[in-house]
Amino acid sequence: MTFPPRQEHPMSNVAPTTPEQLDVILDAARAAVPIWSATAPSERARVLIAVADALDADAERLVGIAQRETGLSEARLRGELTRTMVQLRLFADVIREGSYLDARIDEADDRFVLGTRPELRRVLTPVGVALNFSASNFPFAFSVAGGDSAAALAAGLPLVVKAHSGHPELSVATAEVVAAAARAAGAPDGVFALVVGQAAGTAALEDDRVDVASFTGSIRVGRLLADKAAARPRPILFFGELGSVNPAYVTAAALAERSDQLASGFVASVAGSAGQLCTKPGFLWIPGGADAAAFEDAVARHAAAAAEHRLLNPGIGAAYLARREAVLAAEGVRLVAEGSVRTDDDGQVWASPTIAAISAERLQPGDETLLDEVFGPFSLIVEYDDEAALADRLDALYEGNLTGTVHTGSGEQSPSLSALVARLQRKVGRVLFNGWPTGVAVTYAQQHGGPYPATTNDSSTSVGTAAITRFLRAVAFQDAPQDVLPPSLRDDNPWGIPQRREPAGVSQAWGRRADPGSSV
Amino acid sequence: MTFPPRQEHPMSNVAPTTPEQLDVILDAARAAVPIWSATAPSERARVLIAVADALDADAERLVGIAQRETGLSEARLRGELTRTMVQLRLFADVIREGSYLDARIDEADDRFVLGTRPELRRVLTPVGVALNFSASNFPFAFSVAGGDSAAALAAGLPLVVKAHSGHPELSVATAEVVAAAARAAGAPDGVFALVVGQAAGTAALEDDRVDVASFTGSIRVGRLLADKAAARPRPILFFGELGSVNPAYVTAAALAERSDQLASGFVASVAGSAGQLCTKPGFLWIPGGADAAAFEDAVARHAAAAAEHRLLNPGIGAAYLARREAVLAAEGVRLVAEGSVRTDDDGQVWASPTIAAISAERLQPGDETLLDEVFGPFSLIVEYDDEAALADRLDALYEGNLTGTVHTGSGEQSPSLSALVARLQRKVGRVLFNGWPTGVAVTYAQQHGGPYPATTNDSSTSVGTAAITRFLRAVAFQDAPQDVLPPSLRDDNPWGIPQRREPAGVSQAWGRRADPGSSV
Repeated sequence: MTFPPRQEHPMSNVAPTTPEQLDVILDAARAAVPIWSATAPSERARVLIAVADALDADAERLVGIAQRETGLSEARLRGELTRTMVQLRLFADVIREGSYLDARIDEADDRFVLGTRPELRRVLTPVGVALNFSASNFPFAFSVAGGDSAAALAAGLPLVVKAHSGHPELSVATAEVVAAAARAAGAPDGVFALVVGQAAGTAALEDDRVDVASFTGSIRVGRLLADKAAARPRPILFFGELGSVNPAYVTAAALAERSDQLASGFVASVAGSAGQLCTKPGFLWIPGGADAAAFEDAVARHAAAAAEHRLLNPGIGAAYLARREAVLAAEGVRLVAEGSVRTDDDGQVWASPTIAAISAERLQPGDETLLDEVFGPFSLIVEYDDEAALADRLDALYEGNLTGTVHTGSGEQSPSLSALVARLQRKVGRVLFNGWPTGVAVTYAQQHGGPYPATTNDSSTSVGTAAITRFLRAVAFQDAPQDVLPPSLRDDNPWGIPQRREPAGVSQAWGRRADPGSSV
Repeated sequence: MTFPPRQEHPMSNVAPTTPEQLDVILDAARAAVPIWSATAPSERARVLIAVADALDADAERLVGIAQRETGLSEARLRGELTRTMVQLRLFADVIREGSYLDARIDEADDRFVLGTRPELRRVLTPVGVALNFSASNFPFAFSVAGGDSAAALAAGLPLVVKAHSGHPELSVATAEVVAAAARAAGAPDGVFALVVGQAAGTAALEDDRVDVASFTGSIRVGRLLADKAAARPRPILFFGELGSVNPAYVTAAALAERSDQLASGFVASVAGSAGQLCTKPGFLWIPGGADAAAFEDAVARHAAAAAEHRLLNPGIGAAYLARREAVLAAEGVRLVAEGSVRTDDDGQVWASPTIAAISAERLQPGDETLLDEVFGPFSLIVEYDDEAALADRLDALYEGNLTGTVHTGSGEQSPSLSALVARLQRKVGRVLFNGWPTGVAVTYAQQHGGPYPATTNDSSTSVGTAAITRFLRAVAFQDAPQDVLPPSLRDDNPWGIPQRREPAGVSQAWGRRADPGSSV
């Protein structure tokens, strides 16, 4: 998400965490590392499920606070809270099943190809204390009890969450629910804490007691924090999810088949949550010509029917107004659907979708005004003449993105389409076909990440079960007695998890595996 | 490894890569990305095996050059070359088997717990172009055709290797063998190249055409390069393996049981390859008292029998002399085995093992003279009085390490031993029992990495099959037609790899998984 530099909001009644309080919090988190990391997955799962149940029980109150603080609709917030609970429950399953631990056992081997091999057992293990910076635009699902929090707690890390200034009271209320539920379910002291204020968040990131950090927010702030994490005397991994403009492409065949359906879906994806989603399609490429005009008429019609929506906070509202105005003032940009914008007495900005259009040749590499993200209910239709050029234009215009979308005709195949899809795979984390990128399923095969600046570290995902590995590192045990091994690596396998076992004697045949798929 | 700042060696006949040459190399590597990343694993495996076979065929010549350039023994270099070939063949197996791809398929689900779920398919995919900085101390196994090179090529990344200045002619000779074998086996142009010189290496690291880098070397140079990688306009992951002092601990029971055997194993581990190994035990903690004196006598006897060995190059030799002298001059340090040191007419340093001893209370946190790595055939015996204090002393004295070792008595168990092992697990990448950390098996369950400064990024390993994942990121495909999916994700599964499949309809039960291990 792209924001201009701005002041923090007044934190209503919520006081910033003092350096002394932070010190106590980090000491407690550090002290909890050996306890929580050694807690059986089934016990950690019990805590996650207890937290989900507690959020469920308090849903009405929490959603009410969130509505007031963020301006998001009740339906959206209820759905988001459900997603938050599902994330916690899903991670409970993941850690009890145990394949995320990647447990590997190499048997001792006196016929090993490089001389005698000792017994080696390797498993993923929590890296220490996690720090999670909450997002403005998902007060539940990417905040105090959100995806990264669920993943860190599931992985076995004590967790410190930095509250987002856009929903401070909700952050405190959620943290109280989480802390009470976790404590009641048997979690040790220090496993969970909330810190408030930029100063405390930055100090925590730079503190040696923190071992890994995650973040969802703007490129500017995310890069600033990533640089701090990398510059520490002991650098740590920083998983920042930053900006994305999510280009979408419509082929001529798709447009000819279902213009109105595409227009309706596009507007809904831009309008939802007032466009304040990391996966909002910021650019829609359509073939120019007569079909384009009809499509844009349909877009204007659907956009006009979209309700006005409050933006998350005055800072985001002001940034939206400025970016929208800048794009609309750029040469060659024309309005398709003007959309409303107004600022109320509290400084909150209200808007309905604005859609503009431009011809493809006007879009030039490095044009930040047109190419940078507009965070809010805005999107730019790009009319192209040459489908065969789309792949190269993608490379030239866009940096890394969370998603890329293609809309194709029924059964359509073409070299230019193949080239576009191949290029998208190297530019984004998720390639969609005939759908819209907003609405990110929380499941096993989800990938929410992408090359920089979509993320600062593309080795992981921030949605879905694979997120858990970002909080883990491997440890190997060589010739260890059974009683000192973690349960995940013991021969009696008390947790019943998958263990990959490499028997003695087979290494002599390495590189000589039968390969029916090869002619060699 | 710890070196002082030093000049590069004269590169004999090997000219540094010019900026113009580097530009051509990086363009070719970039152009090879779509081709090599889409090449079937069985074809990439064929290339890896062809490279291994070609190295095998040229072993005598390559080992001869390596002997001359590094001073390492023929036996060691032959073993190392064998390990290099085994790595290549093992990675060929790994990519043909395919579980490294972590292929996941979530079926479309209209009863999904968060509303309709689209079909999602997720697989790991090469991140682009890899840059590998060679090591001084492993002219084969961590250099041009070494572990990171094998992993990058196996993963599907075009590879640029920066030659180490300590063995330039070997680097060129190896690169010629690799390039010819790869070409003959059908690898596309641009898949492999060598660059020579610090300037070319740094320029490549900072070039946007490079997407990931790996390194084995000193803390000073590794941190410098890691900082450059993080400061790029588009930051990239940098997997640096830096310094490690590998503390080893001997309990009173172990010492009572097998003092001479421990002394002999310790000296052999310190003396091997003139102590120029990342996993050399730099500290050996033993209980003080009468048994200590007998142990040290045995150490002196074994050390006196160890042959003189040339250090890798004059720079490393000079650094060894300086570090050895500084430690021996520190208060409280006494010699156990003086060892020889001499400098020959070519400026090469020759040495036999020097072992010193100190009492535990003299070893204080932050004492860089005593605690920093001494790269070469030196180790410090630390005599302790209080076994119960070892775990806390470990935390206070040492940063992250590649390995940590405990030598125990037969069947020994104690709270202090458990505490030490627990603490080691959080401080190192590999915990050994009753063995020595040098000699790193290349296999599935190996972990060669550890918390900073052992590595700059502890999410991976630089030895063993798990190394391959450092060069991969995930991409998800949503509702993609079968014909545009990569073969790894297709229903017909032409590569025959493991695919994790999440059926429709089960998400309603998430978090309600039967868990026989829990009382809930």
